[in-house]
Amino acid sequence: MSSAPPKPRPSSGQVSLSRERSLVPVGMSTILPHAAKQVRRLEEQLLAQVNRWGYDEIILPTFEYLDVLAPGLEPELIDHCYQFVDRTTGRTLLLRPDATAQIARTVAMGLTGSTLPLRLSYRTSVFRYETEHAGRGREIFQVGAELIGLDDITSDSEVIDLMIECLQTIGLQSFKVSLGHVGFIKGLLLRSGLSAQGQKLAEQAAARKDLPRLEEVLASERISKTAARAIREAPELYGQEEVLARGRVLAAGDPALLAPLERLTQVYQLLCAAGHKDSLLLDLGEFRGFDYYDGVVFDVFAEGMGAELGGGGRYDHLIGRFGRPLPSTGFALDVDRLFRTVAFPEEGSAAARVDYLVAAPGQASRRLTAVAAQLRRTGARVVQQTMQGRDAGLVAAAVTAGLAQQAASVVLVGAPGMGSGDVLVIESLAVHRSGNLSRLAKQVGLADLVAAARRAQRKTGERS
Amino acid sequence: MSSAPPKPRPSSGQVSLSRERSLVPVGMSTILPHAAKQVRRLEEQLLAQVNRWGYDEIILPTFEYLDVLAPGLEPELIDHCYQFVDRTTGRTLLLRPDATAQIARTVAMGLTGSTLPLRLSYRTSVFRYETEHAGRGREIFQVGAELIGLDDITSDSEVIDLMIECLQTIGLQSFKVSLGHVGFIKGLLLRSGLSAQGQKLAEQAAARKDLPRLEEVLASERISKTAARAIREAPELYGQEEVLARGRVLAAGDPALLAPLERLTQVYQLLCAAGHKDSLLLDLGEFRGFDYYDGVVFDVFAEGMGAELGGGGRYDHLIGRFGRPLPSTGFALDVDRLFRTVAFPEEGSAAARVDYLVAAPGQASRRLTAVAAQLRRTGARVVQQTMQGRDAGLVAAAVTAGLAQQAASVVLVGAPGMGSGDVLVIESLAVHRSGNLSRLAKQVGLADLVAAARRAQRKTGERS
Repeated sequence: MSSAPPKPRPSSGQVSLSRERSLVPVGMSTILPHAAKQVRRLEEQLLAQVNRWGYDEIILPTFEYLDVLAPGLEPELIDHCYQFVDRTTGRTLLLRPDATAQIARTVAMGLTGSTLPLRLSYRTSVFRYETEHAGRGREIFQVGAELIGLDDITSDSEVIDLMIECLQTIGLQSFKVSLGHVGFIKGLLLRSGLSAQGQKLAEQAAARKDLPRLEEVLASERISKTAARAIREAPELYGQEEVLARGRVLAAGDPALLAPLERLTQVYQLLCAAGHKDSLLLDLGEFRGFDYYDGVVFDVFAEGMGAELGGGGRYDHLIGRFGRPLPSTGFALDVDRLFRTVAFPEEGSAAARVDYLVAAPGQASRRLTAVAAQLRRTGARVVQQTMQGRDAGLVAAAVTAGLAQQAASVVLVGAPGMGSGDVLVIESLAVHRSGNLSRLAKQVGLADLVAAARRAQRKTGERS
Repeated sequence: MSSAPPKPRPSSGQVSLSRERSLVPVGMSTILPHAAKQVRRLEEQLLAQVNRWGYDEIILPTFEYLDVLAPGLEPELIDHCYQFVDRTTGRTLLLRPDATAQIARTVAMGLTGSTLPLRLSYRTSVFRYETEHAGRGREIFQVGAELIGLDDITSDSEVIDLMIECLQTIGLQSFKVSLGHVGFIKGLLLRSGLSAQGQKLAEQAAARKDLPRLEEVLASERISKTAARAIREAPELYGQEEVLARGRVLAAGDPALLAPLERLTQVYQLLCAAGHKDSLLLDLGEFRGFDYYDGVVFDVFAEGMGAELGGGGRYDHLIGRFGRPLPSTGFALDVDRLFRTVAFPEEGSAAARVDYLVAAPGQASRRLTAVAAQLRRTGARVVQQTMQGRDAGLVAAAVTAGLAQQAASVVLVGAPGMGSGDVLVIESLAVHRSGNLSRLAKQVGLADLVAAARRAQRKTGERS
């Protein structure tokens, strides 16, 4: 599922990141090592969770032919695609703007076989044109899941349940999943007697919760006051169960409106029974940004983040547009926004980046390599480096390098006067940062060093 | 480092994969779940290995401005880039054709700070135009590492040592790293008195090991027979240590040729000392495809794969092209080619895709969700599904679904006549595939089922 254009919601300041915003196109990020580690950890936690629910990852091409993918994309979305002409075929290529359409195409083509239901997951970038200075990403990192071939309430609730568990897994504290059914507003609009064009414009206004615009559309055609009042009220119907009761009043016995309400009620109750009541918000104006949704839909917001973190819903007719009708539902999460929302435990400045820096004068590079290899075999994270200088100068150079590399310990190999089985070890660099570190150097046997490294790794292993 | 254009090497048949080659542009792959799992496992093994050597992952934008990245790209490579005009700025954007140039730009811009040496890694796609039916990838999955800020032999050997360990980690059986120094042939060409243009053409021919073309270039200018003979001989100088001795003869005491030979010798000896002699092949014609290499270079081939699996080398002047001269070396591996080369252990058809399929009639979806959640909490991989049918029909439907989903066991919840604390369990589906499975169904208490699941997970954990 794609992240739809954000609705206006209260936003607090976004955490600023050490990312470049010059020389590269606005909206394209370089994620530097410290942040990249956390982004990758997020991705892995999300994928582990969807994996536990039986979803298998699929890897899709970054670009493909426009004419092939177009049936699964809204015209507005195609306008926001990066397109270029394939030199070899003359056909138009586009960078994937949405993973769901690609999966729909892939499934319709029969590439995933005939067994149903299919549970597929992905982690990928999608690309959307945004104007410069819009402050929004053009390359959007997503993790998502699609459940294909089932159309009951249990499958509706499954993907929402799974999405909520994903958010809990990564430690997101307070978030709300707003839950609706596109059939409700669509039913109201259809019943109102608005023209097809009027319905489309009203849908777009309702999706953006743009009430003045909605008012304008309603005023431009002759429809009954009761119908207009119901349409006007629907986008503002959000809250807890009372929303469903009020919806039933607006439905006024019309089965085309009662059916989506009944479905929404059942899915809501199932999710409450699963313990998610506090995370849910019913929203009869919930609409998502994509035309392919045609059932229960949802998106997720967190405090302090103005844009949605993800969402999804049922798209029973999307795969059919590629020639193989199959009911489906799914969700996508925006990894970059999650990264900016989740509070990561502060890593103290004392935390080491690597376990050992192994240093040696240039003429001892063979021993350097051998010692580093032995330490790595214990599972330790080890960098190696040759050093200039002699005697105390050599030790000082090694210590300086160890501090710069944020190494927990420095191991000096091949220093003059040391036996070939011995090394010089300076432990807990960060702790002693200010003292005279060369005085803390201890001469130890290589075998003892390796044994100590092995013990330390075993301890780390037990803790994690 | 980028994977350079493959040199002609003997190729055996490539393993054919279940990937689509129609409707999507040739050279763009969809990797289906079974293969995707193995590809991701490969990536993770490679990244874990480079991580152990102290390399930190960096995530780079998929496209950027041509004018910004151009200083780091060969003109020939730019010709093979996917380019498109940025609607908002009018500047030309290009899909990343090479991660090394992007990292060079990023480091030169100071984004990675001032601490040196820097050890960076990446996993990414790079994109190159290839003609349709060329049978080569346009989207190339890479994992790579760059060591920036060091210029001694230990850093040359470090990246090769690390690359070899990466290949061993993923279980690649027989491969050869061919090791050379671009300074040797460049020195021969310079000394020969060829024009600058002639030198460039000869370099290109030598890089492709295109001896007839090299002959042509040499014949087109007036150079001494001795010089021509040496240039002609160099691309064919590959093998073990005797190559270095022959190189010294060709150098004829010229320090500009002896220096690269000496460097190559030292790096070779260091790698041999690290136990890699059997994986190495010296190649005085080794040249890589990229102009930015200016020191020790290498690439890696395996039996049965005509194209190189990866490679790299020293590129001391690349980062300087972006304004911050820094010595550097690195490598990249082609994940897709590795995937096609590595022999994966055959997963027997009896291997289950998921541990449990939890099934229930529609009216029991709450209990279905609850039981599935409890089983997942043990760490088991669980899918859930509502079923049509009653009594024996219900059991048969659940068993059929379990077999289709390749579940190890089926758990039936809320079947009529069962106590609310009980479930019906059918274990070892695959084993009993042919028998009357409903007869194997056992009624068990939910608590006992969960306890059994926990024991099974603990066993799996101990085994892995």
